[in-house]
Amino acid sequence: MTQPSVGTVQSKSFTFAHPPTPMVLDSGVELGPVSLAYETYGTLNAERSNAVLVCHALTGDAHVAGYHAGDDKPGWWEHYVGPGKPIDTDRYFVVCSNVIGSCMGSCGPSSINPATGRYWGLDFPLVTIPDMVRAQRELLRHLGIDHLLAVTGGSLGGMQTLQWAAAYPEMMDGILALATTSRHSPQAIAFNEVARQSIMSDPNWKNGDYYDGVRPDLGLAVARMIGHITYLSDESMHVKFGRELRKGSFAFNFEGDFQVESYLHHQGKKFVERFDANAFLYVTKAADYFDLDLANPDSPARRALAATPARFQLVSFTSDWLYPTYQSRQVVDVLKALGKDVSFCEITAPWGHDAFLLPDERLETVVRGFLGGLHGC
Amino acid sequence: MTQPSVGTVQSKSFTFAHPPTPMVLDSGVELGPVSLAYETYGTLNAERSNAVLVCHALTGDAHVAGYHAGDDKPGWWEHYVGPGKPIDTDRYFVVCSNVIGSCMGSCGPSSINPATGRYWGLDFPLVTIPDMVRAQRELLRHLGIDHLLAVTGGSLGGMQTLQWAAAYPEMMDGILALATTSRHSPQAIAFNEVARQSIMSDPNWKNGDYYDGVRPDLGLAVARMIGHITYLSDESMHVKFGRELRKGSFAFNFEGDFQVESYLHHQGKKFVERFDANAFLYVTKAADYFDLDLANPDSPARRALAATPARFQLVSFTSDWLYPTYQSRQVVDVLKALGKDVSFCEITAPWGHDAFLLPDERLETVVRGFLGGLHGC
Repeated sequence: MTQPSVGTVQSKSFTFAHPPTPMVLDSGVELGPVSLAYETYGTLNAERSNAVLVCHALTGDAHVAGYHAGDDKPGWWEHYVGPGKPIDTDRYFVVCSNVIGSCMGSCGPSSINPATGRYWGLDFPLVTIPDMVRAQRELLRHLGIDHLLAVTGGSLGGMQTLQWAAAYPEMMDGILALATTSRHSPQAIAFNEVARQSIMSDPNWKNGDYYDGVRPDLGLAVARMIGHITYLSDESMHVKFGRELRKGSFAFNFEGDFQVESYLHHQGKKFVERFDANAFLYVTKAADYFDLDLANPDSPARRALAATPARFQLVSFTSDWLYPTYQSRQVVDVLKALGKDVSFCEITAPWGHDAFLLPDERLETVVRGFLGGLHGC
Repeated sequence: MTQPSVGTVQSKSFTFAHPPTPMVLDSGVELGPVSLAYETYGTLNAERSNAVLVCHALTGDAHVAGYHAGDDKPGWWEHYVGPGKPIDTDRYFVVCSNVIGSCMGSCGPSSINPATGRYWGLDFPLVTIPDMVRAQRELLRHLGIDHLLAVTGGSLGGMQTLQWAAAYPEMMDGILALATTSRHSPQAIAFNEVARQSIMSDPNWKNGDYYDGVRPDLGLAVARMIGHITYLSDESMHVKFGRELRKGSFAFNFEGDFQVESYLHHQGKKFVERFDANAFLYVTKAADYFDLDLANPDSPARRALAATPARFQLVSFTSDWLYPTYQSRQVVDVLKALGKDVSFCEITAPWGHDAFLLPDERLETVVRGFLGGLHGC
């Protein structure tokens, strides 16, 4: 018996902001046309009240669940999205789109600039999380959705989720933000910047203009390895790898003695096959810019949160040191001070930041319960 | 009034293991002659009982205190070593040598292979912390020191300190190990490996054979930036940098918006002026190999610790996440189980791993008190 799944799915594309009415980005730069890759699962009900928007993490994509034809690997949140699953596609109409600035089907530095017929490269304007969310709003309009049951996502997806509440406070019943923050910390910025420096130090990067030649794979691989350390935890590395050696004894060379080194090499290698170096610069920069400024009583985000009727559920993980529990609590504290309906759950798990992507009965229960509560079932 | 200082000092050099009696390294490879850069401060007393060996950290050097002629920057532990200071050069004879495999005066990949007249590069054999300590033992023999009042150091210097007790358990009265571990964790290995990959991905690295050409500065700078994140803490980064911008508003480019980014760039740039990329590979690898295997009752290190008459003092710092407190506690627990005279102090400080290098009255008190107790004053 196979696991229930949404089955075979296909990504679609939506283009908007055609000239002469481009999208005006936070930077002030005009961008248009803007293309989004997206997927949907389940059926929008007649009342159009059952749409759940899922926002993906840093290097994720619109392919949340099910299988692309010919693939044996499902979408990145297969365990949570599907028939009978916590985000139940028998009940909810699920939408996810690839963020702008990325390279998984939406427009970004690795797509073609229609004005020149050439790859954008660094001529693509920098985008922010508010820009990403505004683009998603256009997609929903296209899909005939003016109200969301919920917005959810983890990590960069959680930031988008919080940004949704700040930008469109009247539009959703619930906000379910996982393993995230309202303000990218200096340590998180530092990790992103070192990863970017690794890419930009690769001579094949050529100031972003490498699409017709050799790609900066070595720099991008190191960037990914840095990221992977922050996605795991000291504890999970002890459990997964310890000090286990690849070959039983020290090799006394620089080829990598330890299992943890092989793991990182493998992650680096796999990543360059699927992700674009420039896009990595763009999405990390968007994360670094993110700051809802919630401690400031006059910040637009805080005033928007004060006005939203949405319920909130935040989830953090004990061993997540990239977006530690205290950062979720800061959001929860503000929401409480604003008199919002907010629940918070810190899940004890050794797996670090990655935990929100992994099967976990407690997280399943929280997600299912929160959506069910909004949906009245 | 100037601060008390050992004043103007000079590094010296000592060479041993001349062929045909080379040093046999842990790898089985023979190395000789072996050169060490070292400094001494204070006077060895007539009983030769007041020598304190200081071991330096990863990219440190023999220049612990005082000033080299023409320099306005003192040694790396000036605050702790000098007349009237916690490691009081009016009382103690202080010795420090640069570790083998490094590039600060001792032999390593950037020195000349006497057999070929050319730079060693990767032909230099890999060394371990036990190898480093054996070389220090030869230096002490040369200085006429057969007994140490104490061995001390932080980080990689703390590992050497613990290794001293394991290798020469009869030779010292005290072991003072700061911000360190008896076993390099998989997370610490992971950070080192990503830093090494950054160097080895730089096309100027040329498999370590770059001394006659352009150096892999970009790769080495990124490696150093990675290290610097691990030397600070989430908390200290909030205090030092927060989300402060260099220019008041987002630049919407990749030149570095945040102060924390400037700090990292600066650290990377400074580092390539003083340290060799190959040497960085060697010293990080020595750290990764380090494992006293203390949990194993039959390990040679544990048996040596059982036999030593030395007193122990370990110090950790609350915000040090590179060698967290639990790793010091593991050593303390073993020492207690062995019935040793051991004290442990966890200092509350936000500065991360770097804390052991910074002025701190509590650390000063611990260091002064521990040495004074050994010295009977």
